[in-house]
Amino acid sequence: MYDIIVTGAGHAGCEAALSAARMGSSCLLISSDLTAIARMSCNPAIGGVAKGQITREIDALGGEMAKAIDATGIQFRMLNRSKGPAMHSPRAQADRTLYSLYMRNVIEKEANIDLLQDTVVGIECSGGAFSGVRLMSGRIINGRTAILSCGTFLNGLIHIGMNHYAGGRTIAEPPVYGLTEDLVKYGFAAGRLKTGTPARIDARSVEYDLVEEQSGDPLPISFSFRNTPVINRHQISCFVTKTTKATHEILKKGFDRSPLFSGKVQGIGPRYCPSIEDKICRFPDKDSHHIFLEPEGFDTNEMYVNGFSTSLPEEIQLEALQSLPGLRNVKMIRPGYAIEYDYFFPYQINRSLETKLVKNLFFAGQINGTSGYEEAAAQGLIAGINATLLLRGRAPLHLKRSDAYIGVLIDDLVTKETNEPYRMFTSSAEHRLLLRHDNADIRLCHHAKSAGLIDADTFSDCTNKKRLIDTLNQLCLDTKIKPDVANTLLAGLGHPPVTTTQSAVNLLKKPGVHFHMLLESALSFKESVYAVTDDPLVFEQVEIDLKYEGYLKRDLLMAEKILRLDLHEIPASFRYDHVTGLSNEGREKLMKLRPETIGQASRILGVSPSDISVLMIRLGR
Amino acid sequence: MYDIIVTGAGHAGCEAALSAARMGSSCLLISSDLTAIARMSCNPAIGGVAKGQITREIDALGGEMAKAIDATGIQFRMLNRSKGPAMHSPRAQADRTLYSLYMRNVIEKEANIDLLQDTVVGIECSGGAFSGVRLMSGRIINGRTAILSCGTFLNGLIHIGMNHYAGGRTIAEPPVYGLTEDLVKYGFAAGRLKTGTPARIDARSVEYDLVEEQSGDPLPISFSFRNTPVINRHQISCFVTKTTKATHEILKKGFDRSPLFSGKVQGIGPRYCPSIEDKICRFPDKDSHHIFLEPEGFDTNEMYVNGFSTSLPEEIQLEALQSLPGLRNVKMIRPGYAIEYDYFFPYQINRSLETKLVKNLFFAGQINGTSGYEEAAAQGLIAGINATLLLRGRAPLHLKRSDAYIGVLIDDLVTKETNEPYRMFTSSAEHRLLLRHDNADIRLCHHAKSAGLIDADTFSDCTNKKRLIDTLNQLCLDTKIKPDVANTLLAGLGHPPVTTTQSAVNLLKKPGVHFHMLLESALSFKESVYAVTDDPLVFEQVEIDLKYEGYLKRDLLMAEKILRLDLHEIPASFRYDHVTGLSNEGREKLMKLRPETIGQASRILGVSPSDISVLMIRLGR
Ligand SMILES: Cc1cc2nc3c(=O)[nH]c(=O)nc-3n(C[C@H](O)[C@H](O)[C@H](O)COP(=O)(O)OP(=O)(O)OC[C@H]3O[C@@H](n4cnc5c(N)ncnc54)[C@H](O)[C@@H]3O)c2cc1C
Ligand SMILES: Cc1cc2nc3c(=O)[nH]c(=O)nc-3n(C[C@H](O)[C@H](O)[C@H](O)COP(=O)(O)OP(=O)(O)OC[C@H]3O[C@@H](n4cnc5c(N)ncnc54)[C@H](O)[C@@H]3O)c2cc1C
Repeated sequence: MYDIIVTGAGHAGCEAALSAARMGSSCLLISSDLTAIARMSCNPAIGGVAKGQITREIDALGGEMAKAIDATGIQFRMLNRSKGPAMHSPRAQADRTLYSLYMRNVIEKEANIDLLQDTVVGIECSGGAFSGVRLMSGRIINGRTAILSCGTFLNGLIHIGMNHYAGGRTIAEPPVYGLTEDLVKYGFAAGRLKTGTPARIDARSVEYDLVEEQSGDPLPISFSFRNTPVINRHQISCFVTKTTKATHEILKKGFDRSPLFSGKVQGIGPRYCPSIEDKICRFPDKDSHHIFLEPEGFDTNEMYVNGFSTSLPEEIQLEALQSLPGLRNVKMIRPGYAIEYDYFFPYQINRSLETKLVKNLFFAGQINGTSGYEEAAAQGLIAGINATLLLRGRAPLHLKRSDAYIGVLIDDLVTKETNEPYRMFTSSAEHRLLLRHDNADIRLCHHAKSAGLIDADTFSDCTNKKRLIDTLNQLCLDTKIKPDVANTLLAGLGHPPVTTTQSAVNLLKKPGVHFHMLLESALSFKESVYAVTDDPLVFEQVEIDLKYEGYLKRDLLMAEKILRLDLHEIPASFRYDHVTGLSNEGREKLMKLRPETIGQASRILGVSPSDISVLMIRLGR
Repeated sequence: MYDIIVTGAGHAGCEAALSAARMGSSCLLISSDLTAIARMSCNPAIGGVAKGQITREIDALGGEMAKAIDATGIQFRMLNRSKGPAMHSPRAQADRTLYSLYMRNVIEKEANIDLLQDTVVGIECSGGAFSGVRLMSGRIINGRTAILSCGTFLNGLIHIGMNHYAGGRTIAEPPVYGLTEDLVKYGFAAGRLKTGTPARIDARSVEYDLVEEQSGDPLPISFSFRNTPVINRHQISCFVTKTTKATHEILKKGFDRSPLFSGKVQGIGPRYCPSIEDKICRFPDKDSHHIFLEPEGFDTNEMYVNGFSTSLPEEIQLEALQSLPGLRNVKMIRPGYAIEYDYFFPYQINRSLETKLVKNLFFAGQINGTSGYEEAAAQGLIAGINATLLLRGRAPLHLKRSDAYIGVLIDDLVTKETNEPYRMFTSSAEHRLLLRHDNADIRLCHHAKSAGLIDADTFSDCTNKKRLIDTLNQLCLDTKIKPDVANTLLAGLGHPPVTTTQSAVNLLKKPGVHFHMLLESALSFKESVYAVTDDPLVFEQVEIDLKYEGYLKRDLLMAEKILRLDLHEIPASFRYDHVTGLSNEGREKLMKLRPETIGQASRILGVSPSDISVLMIRLGR
């Protein structure tokens, strides 16, 4: 009997199986098509704003996604370099095929994972707890816990113009029938979402003198903290073009045959990943939208047309593409489309990702209404960890909103009523200055260690790094720099001169002053620093810590306050209907979402501060 | 407008698009799933008895299959080395994933091929000739000619026990609906065939001390005549086990739920690739059958259980597998199954592979009722060549039965009523001593040259080789070897001594005498030989030519006789119903199969020698 049965080897399922297996659980990973493990359904890229941070967090928690993109990335860029450190976000284009092969290989190498190519159409329970999965053939495989990570496959329906086709991800991949209906029998409530993808084009048909080249960073940085080498990677360029008025006119010709506008699609689409037709409708004043041409790999002519997601009829798609500068002769390898699929309202899961209705059953990934590879992978990782902890009788890993974007993600899922595809943004995180990509290791290594997801070396590297940062922070406080030394530096940056001795911290706080400049200017300071370490990653942390000291302190304070609320647990059996003094709306939402803590309750839309006071009193706090 | 639209990027479609494109035709290759190009549906191997010869012929004609397996083979073996040269057959295990990626890459690199991920559901005609394909969406793409190579996808239905599922190749790949029905509207007659595949198992669950290792040849030989280097390839071993009485008993328990025996499967299966349940039924006296465990790649745990094709219920499959020595703890990654699919009776195509009913439309591969990657690829290659020749107003390439296995294959297809999956065997070729794997280049380079499929260098290498062979053949006739020299050699092989001077030919004809021995024994002979060449491949040809001189001459004579009949063409409009003197059965068959030559007519089952005489007279010969 397997400890954990994972259904669906997408981004969520892979991380789930790997984290559980690495913690020592015996896993069976069932997927309909073992040639499509961790396949990227849509854009061939990992990371980006907020998503890059999640990828780094996955890595800090011992997950695989960062290593996978490091191994198979074809272009690496740090987005928002000109903004503050909270906004710096690593992103990389992937070789879609190699990414999938890499992940398959890692999974195959893992002794605790068995693979099965089959399709799960139902679950078996005994005594309110999961006991097994039911395959298409009727065969039942028993397991102690299960993680369902079915992505967009449940009753998937693909739309192109007024045509529709059964499809789980592409038309060439059949959807899964029966599983939604089976879960509904257990009481789960399912909804319907939609998302879309653009056409793929032939890179040979682009006129490169008419599009703008976008190359990778000259010194690419790896996603993984374990320093997978990407520095000498041969990088492939992307290209930028834009829609024109003509494009918009062509697209509008197809609006009467748009499955979105005609009401043919029932599912709700992602607000922040709109189709090109949505963009034209929502922003009628904009004459042009940027369109990115992204190669799908090192060695393929297929190119992804980022920003041009559409489900208009094929011939409109082609005509519109051909109206973009540089694409006059473009050849379309496959059309874009929209896909509708079932998901389960995520208020039906706990923070551990275990479902409230069926014990030992976890949901992870797009099945919870999220959108995006990184969001899916993060959930898979946590589900794998928590299923294992559950089997061991240990408390689940709950990441707080101030610990990680992953904490924000899960908290949002269980407290917000997700009625549209949920995607992570930096603006969703109130503590985003704490949740930087660069400090994910330090933020999370203790969690990773206690779950047994990282080895002793990785952990001690991380604690060591933290120690060095603290030492240098103190050193900066203690080091006094003479005015003449300081002024050479300041003059170069256009700052007025100082007249008194300055602490290194003071100087660092001035705009434009970077740690490495200080080292170069103040040689005795440099000597003391190098006596501690010469690691530029430590210098980076010290610089951020000191430059943003005030903000960081404020953030930490706020986090502590919230934490106090989050420590007040609400028993699962708590009877809101017996509590007088709650607002009607508050009571209704609390009964539906059943928050696990007062903190969560306070973040539910419709639950008022006075509802929270009533609850606090009632719970004896 | 494309010159050629190829539908289906399987083994047939890939060779079709490549040969046509290399000859200069503009091609569109449409396939439902571009991530599955040249995917091996069943066993991960190329070549074998008769199929190895076909692969070499494909290479000699400028095709890609041999290069693909050379590039991605994980184990190379020359089968039947102990038998005569007609039986020597190269075979290699492939890395299934790399094979597909290799082919995709070659196709992407070909400037004359565009790719489209879509599904063809119908054709358009004008004036009895093909004019375009109709996609799932209704969109029509026009082309001058078309090649349909849809494999097992047309109305594919997969059976496991009493369950059945829609599937084109696996359950994860949807079948194609509508195309058969559309073609039937044009008058084509479709039939139903079936084939099967065994379970895949986890290599980690095999007890290796209980199975026999089968390693590759120590000096592996490449498939391609262009000498792709395989000699230093890291080779992976296969393993041999066998069924036991217990296995047979377990399998029999499932017979009442066998889709084959219960009449659930309508399609006719391959006689020579029977399922394990077929084998047990047909050979009730055999207590055991060999089973081969074949790794699916360099770096995967998946293993193919060759010889164990079955569509019995999953649990019976697993139990039966676990009864094989070495597989007691085996883990099944996916079950075996049977698949039924539509094909078009191949009497509906000409030798050029153009259909008789619709001009400019070609069928190639499994759609013609064949089975096997090599048979499919060979047809694709020929269809691509002939579609191009047709567009140029040139006569089609017709390979004769004495030219190539490919000639035998196509002649059999158009003259035999294929009611079961057609697979090539050496016994199908009456000239098999001529049709060796080792001389495919010499046999076919002129055809390849005149079609423009090989470059000048390849051609001159080949004609040069032929010249060297002829020179050495003559040298062997002319060289006299003294009795003392000869006797040293003969004594070592246990032959009685000779008393007179012997020609090199005479000595070579003696059993056990090989060319290289002659070289070592007769040093002056060696000197004269090396003055011509030191190429061991030339020596090999000389040895075979001279050792089998008598047989080869007889074969060539027979081939010429047949050729004479094959030169007598029968007009396509010939009215058999107006010919008196034909037997009833003969007339019926001739009207149905409409042979293109008297030779073909003579090979039709039911057409008697007297029918042939009547025809000859009637046609004025
Ligand atoms: C057309 C399309 C466009 C998209 N566009 C965007 C976008 O623009 N932006 C964005 O952020 N995200 C987009 N996505 C979503 C993104 O691909 C997903 O969020 C992400 O892949 C989800 O990961 P997952 O692991 O949950 O599921 P998936 O990656 O979908 O993987 C699910 C896996 O489970 C298998 N499976 C499912 N059910 C079963 C079963 N019952 N039994 C066995 N195996 C099963 C499937 O075969 C598949 O391998 C898009 C998805 C699609 C299909
Ligand atoms: C389960 C199974 C078991 C088999 N077992 C054996 C065996 O034991 N021995 C043996 O010799 N052979 C076996 N075969 C057969 C062997 O795989 C085929 O002979 C060979 O692959 C045929 O090559 P093909 O190019 O004709 O078609 P395929 O390799 O089947 O390729 C067809 C391609 O065309 C695409 N396609 C089909 N229709 C359309 C359309 N309308 N529009 C767009 N794309 C389309 C498909 O997606 C696919 O990529 C087996 C096949 C299967 C499925």
